[in-house]
Amino acid sequence: MAGSGFGTIFKITTWGESHGKGIGVVIDGCPAGLSLEESDIQAYLDRRKPGQSGFSTPRRESDRVEILSGVFEGKTTGTPISLIVRNENQKSADYSEIASFYRPGHADYTFDAKYGFRDYRGGGRSSGRETIGRVAAGSIAAKILHQMGIRLCTYTRSIGPVEISPERFDAGQIRQNPLYMPDAGAALEAQLYLEQCMSGQDSSGGVIECVIDGMPAGIGDPVFEKLDANLAKAVFSIGAVKGFEIGSGFQAAEKKGSENNDAFTCDASGTIQKQTNHAGGILGGMSDGSQIIFRAAVKPTPSIARTQHTVRKDGSPVDIQIKGRHDPVIVPRAVVVVESMAALVILDALLVNMSAKLDSILQFYK
Amino acid sequence: MAGSGFGTIFKITTWGESHGKGIGVVIDGCPAGLSLEESDIQAYLDRRKPGQSGFSTPRRESDRVEILSGVFEGKTTGTPISLIVRNENQKSADYSEIASFYRPGHADYTFDAKYGFRDYRGGGRSSGRETIGRVAAGSIAAKILHQMGIRLCTYTRSIGPVEISPERFDAGQIRQNPLYMPDAGAALEAQLYLEQCMSGQDSSGGVIECVIDGMPAGIGDPVFEKLDANLAKAVFSIGAVKGFEIGSGFQAAEKKGSENNDAFTCDASGTIQKQTNHAGGILGGMSDGSQIIFRAAVKPTPSIARTQHTVRKDGSPVDIQIKGRHDPVIVPRAVVVVESMAALVILDALLVNMSAKLDSILQFYK
Amino acid sequence: MAGSGFGTIFKITTWGESHGKGIGVVIDGCPAGLSLEESDIQAYLDRRKPGQSGFSTPRRESDRVEILSGVFEGKTTGTPISLIVRNENQKSADYSEIASFYRPGHADYTFDAKYGFRDYRGGGRSSGRETIGRVAAGSIAAKILHQMGIRLCTYTRSIGPVEISPERFDAGQIRQNPLYMPDAGAALEAQLYLEQCMSGQDSSGGVIECVIDGMPAGIGDPVFEKLDANLAKAVFSIGAVKGFEIGSGFQAAEKKGSENNDAFTCDASGTIQKQTNHAGGILGGMSDGSQIIFRAAVKPTPSIARTQHTVRKDGSPVDIQIKGRHDPVIVPRAVVVVESMAALVILDALLVNMSAKLDSILQFYK
Amino acid sequence: MAGSGFGTIFKITTWGESHGKGIGVVIDGCPAGLSLEESDIQAYLDRRKPGQSGFSTPRRESDRVEILSGVFEGKTTGTPISLIVRNENQKSADYSEIASFYRPGHADYTFDAKYGFRDYRGGGRSSGRETIGRVAAGSIAAKILHQMGIRLCTYTRSIGPVEISPERFDAGQIRQNPLYMPDAGAALEAQLYLEQCMSGQDSSGGVIECVIDGMPAGIGDPVFEKLDANLAKAVFSIGAVKGFEIGSGFQAAEKKGSENNDAFTCDASGTIQKQTNHAGGILGGMSDGSQIIFRAAVKPTPSIARTQHTVRKDGSPVDIQIKGRHDPVIVPRAVVVVESMAALVILDALLVNMSAKLDSILQFYK
Repeated sequence: MAGSGFGTIFKITTWGESHGKGIGVVIDGCPAGLSLEESDIQAYLDRRKPGQSGFSTPRRESDRVEILSGVFEGKTTGTPISLIVRNENQKSADYSEIASFYRPGHADYTFDAKYGFRDYRGGGRSSGRETIGRVAAGSIAAKILHQMGIRLCTYTRSIGPVEISPERFDAGQIRQNPLYMPDAGAALEAQLYLEQCMSGQDSSGGVIECVIDGMPAGIGDPVFEKLDANLAKAVFSIGAVKGFEIGSGFQAAEKKGSENNDAFTCDASGTIQKQTNHAGGILGGMSDGSQIIFRAAVKPTPSIARTQHTVRKDGSPVDIQIKGRHDPVIVPRAVVVVESMAALVILDALLVNMSAKLDSILQFYK
Repeated sequence: MAGSGFGTIFKITTWGESHGKGIGVVIDGCPAGLSLEESDIQAYLDRRKPGQSGFSTPRRESDRVEILSGVFEGKTTGTPISLIVRNENQKSADYSEIASFYRPGHADYTFDAKYGFRDYRGGGRSSGRETIGRVAAGSIAAKILHQMGIRLCTYTRSIGPVEISPERFDAGQIRQNPLYMPDAGAALEAQLYLEQCMSGQDSSGGVIECVIDGMPAGIGDPVFEKLDANLAKAVFSIGAVKGFEIGSGFQAAEKKGSENNDAFTCDASGTIQKQTNHAGGILGGMSDGSQIIFRAAVKPTPSIARTQHTVRKDGSPVDIQIKGRHDPVIVPRAVVVVESMAALVILDALLVNMSAKLDSILQFYK
Repeated sequence: MAGSGFGTIFKITTWGESHGKGIGVVIDGCPAGLSLEESDIQAYLDRRKPGQSGFSTPRRESDRVEILSGVFEGKTTGTPISLIVRNENQKSADYSEIASFYRPGHADYTFDAKYGFRDYRGGGRSSGRETIGRVAAGSIAAKILHQMGIRLCTYTRSIGPVEISPERFDAGQIRQNPLYMPDAGAALEAQLYLEQCMSGQDSSGGVIECVIDGMPAGIGDPVFEKLDANLAKAVFSIGAVKGFEIGSGFQAAEKKGSENNDAFTCDASGTIQKQTNHAGGILGGMSDGSQIIFRAAVKPTPSIARTQHTVRKDGSPVDIQIKGRHDPVIVPRAVVVVESMAALVILDALLVNMSAKLDSILQFYK
Repeated sequence: MAGSGFGTIFKITTWGESHGKGIGVVIDGCPAGLSLEESDIQAYLDRRKPGQSGFSTPRRESDRVEILSGVFEGKTTGTPISLIVRNENQKSADYSEIASFYRPGHADYTFDAKYGFRDYRGGGRSSGRETIGRVAAGSIAAKILHQMGIRLCTYTRSIGPVEISPERFDAGQIRQNPLYMPDAGAALEAQLYLEQCMSGQDSSGGVIECVIDGMPAGIGDPVFEKLDANLAKAVFSIGAVKGFEIGSGFQAAEKKGSENNDAFTCDASGTIQKQTNHAGGILGGMSDGSQIIFRAAVKPTPSIARTQHTVRKDGSPVDIQIKGRHDPVIVPRAVVVVESMAALVILDALLVNMSAKLDSILQFYK
């Protein structure tokens, strides 16, 4: 099992390698009747496109998406939506050398261990380009969520040691800087830090945060299909993610119950709410009506220019320098990937949830 | 979908509520030919049993497991293994009051939001007793892994602010103290801390760590079914878990690539290894042959004796005190639950992996 | 994979062997709020109980079902419903001899080929008792369908050469004769035929027919999850079924298009209908609003008293006579099993279908 | 759920409409290391291509397949294989009229009932062109099976009243006549029959038979995932199939046990076999080592030139004549589709089966 499928009702299957003919995704289970154009999808893809600043690789792909099926007269038909982005900029020659050794921090060795050999061109299936299919599908999920009044806001929370300040938080800033930080000051500081990393032929990690507004209460399941468990898997399935936490997250481990519990209250309109949100919007695996807030830790780009020790396929030692230019930080381009995966999980949970109550079902089919 | 199923080939389905007739699990897909007795399973269940120390609820359940199917003449037959633990100690009267209000930090409110009503006795399906099915199934997975030379070691890494010391790490200590800490000194300190919490009618969170030895390289899948993504989901599906990280985890976000990359090397026997293990044993979603190391952050027990503010079902405010005795910390009893979920994920990945290479398949059916 | 799970949203997992401790099923995904008592389930189980006439084995099991979880204060909670029927009448001694040879027409040989050994007592997992779990789950599905106005009527269409007559069809007769035939005359004739079979130490096959009324149009999916494809799998998964057809079935192969097409028309109320129903109520995999009609061919009971040639496990030849009394025909007791499987498929398709249209989803979550 | 996915380990997802940009399939879970070229797949696609004789529509599509991913240096990599066939011959104008009414025997009405509207061009997703994805994937499954010594032979068994004769059966004839009949005499007779149908502006049904040689015993599962149940679903998921039977099939219903049971015997080499094969190669859901033999009943092409009565979307009556030329019989072109679906089921069952026995697993990972 290559494991390239995701979702229960809104199911996606992605395919494609960095230097193959293209990258794509098939979405099986998109509801019928959604207005959908290539531009809806392109807007999301453009957020992960390389070559947009000094902090992402200058490989310039136009990454134009083409809808191959599932849309008729501008609307989804309920049948599979097949999307393709053709690869344009593949210079396989650049990658011939890396076929012979195992790059530290990459999946070269594990691919060989699993499959016996690998498509070594640009990381093959483990390239960042694999996320194109996720983002293309996620853009459609997000469009549906938007119509349901559910909005996702995702941004860079930290890069290396530079973290955004709660006081300066400004969502309007997110798309104003190349690092997608909601804090202009931190963004400037982080750019300086990244320039240092680059001049030291090095790279940096960081943290991505996602906030989901408008989620109704009671979505998700109480045991294995907890909403937070599915978000954890979705986000952890993105290459380079090494940690996931929701609400107070790892800090909860140091707290006392009296500090971490969120008291329930009732607002003027009669809506039950929580006074605080240490839970991050999910209790017992089901949404509690508050904002859903989670974070993902992203490791530093493993492709660095400085000399590294490693081995060849036969085990013999070799010192390597990874050529070509690589993003000094994965985080900014991964922001939209995290948002896309979250959108897929949230929408799927909402669709699955329609059959939770007999009354709703009888009403639906009345 | 209640979402009580887990796994692809080694599939489990759990059932049961805290105060229903019992708790159980059906394992569909256990290979034929495993020697299995109730005592194999009981040994695991006893590790999560309440009433074993001053730090767990004195509710004394014998929690005896009964094998109902799938084992014939002492061996698994390949057909579903049905396991049941009868509930013995259910005093529903204790729980009548909590039917009327929503306990902070619990799933009471979200259950009502999803299903319209709930089995309010002892947390119903969201009780810690739900994990009995996980542990019973996990014990069987672990027995198979043991025969493959794969061992899991799981323990309490921290309770509140008290963390184990790497210098004093002693796996032999884990079962020597009621907190399952591999550090006698930290265990004593943590017990003092928990006594403080209890005298303050409060509770504490903590961190669980799991180390897996003997895992062959190349297990797991490169995209959505990454081994770490499945571990993340498995562990996050345990109630009270708020964070998950692997290897250097959230610390990777603050590091540089040159610090976080693990150099490959080759030992005398010709085995390719990593010199360090910041990756935590998984690269690109597939095991790399190193130890797999992950951590889970567990929130403090939400049931605390001190007065809390909340609302009734109709939204009216109420001050509550949760009666009965509750564990002041979830962590020690959750250690075996984390280990069980990890065993399920690891075994399933190994079984799925058998069809990765055509050569192996042709050899298998020769 | 033992393959004991069935369904997408309304998922069941069955377990148990003929001579183990019991037989059971876990239903994961039953909507919350259904009134459910053991008597609802028992009514279905009683329809497949042995020992009810001269044409079924006199092994008298009371087959009492017990609800173990998922029901609180008389209503389903949305969490897994675990059901158990304890085995009572297991005399393992009766079956010791068959451990040594392979009975013709049974799964003895294939079980050994797959798993290396088998629980040989009474057929083990391949016993007819395996269907108890299906029927218990099916009874719940049927109860929900009933509330949606969907009724299933299943009966014996033929036994050996004796077929019901369309002219004498009387649904009221089905439960009036031990063969579940909707034709009193055919039932008498079939009983005579079965007596002949029994006196000749032989058995008979037959055909079961199922008619589903009240199904809304548009349920099912157009490609692999066609409603008829899922019915085919469900019915074919019942032991002894050797053929399945819908509507005109195999006769359609001999017809011309002008004979087989069903013309659409419109009734006074404006409802679009078909003038005929050669399609059997499904077009392109989706229900068309007509009656769904399908048939299953059931082979004769393989356990017959007359001498048969076979081999022992080591391949040496042996002549055997299967002892004990066995049903001379499987069909009557399988009628409720076919109905149960159909109910599971139909309900699951209805639940899956709730997310087909965006408009309905937006309306649902408004 | 559009339901366009199929398989457990060797999973496929098909997409595409008759008059969209193309038709395709993604295969997720193909083992690594299979030599694969476009010509392997093309050979299968050519068997279902239209325009090859007077008995199939003259719409001439070249139907050239392109491999988009998953193959590197001539071998499958273990990652998803994406295949596309571009549509070339779409004249949407031809189909504008059928948008307004519901063709008898087609899915027009049910599509509208399910999704609210439909892509009416050439049947949209319910076109016969949907099977291109199945055949493309099936060709790969068949190539793997071939390397395991498993061969599928599929042919037309009957067209209308014309059936092949067992005495004249000659597999070498199958590709020698446009009807894929293994009997030259019957093929001639059937051609005459089809010419009559065509001159009467009518069409014919027929029966397809598939024989699988070389299958090891013990493949498939004993309960819901019976090998015959999965074959039934796979074949029934092909449009126009109305019946499925295995071995003696519907005839078993008329037989006695003594006639239908297959006696076991042992050949000179010590292999256990059956003397007859009424079972069709599967007992209790698992292969028994004999030939697997099944049949599918295919309805007559619903698109016929003669005038038919139907209704418009608003229910008003209309007499229609379906323009354009259509195959007078679906059977010959469906032969390779049936074979492809069978190959997918058989291969998947073999892959799933690798984890049936603990001994095999321990041996595999030794």
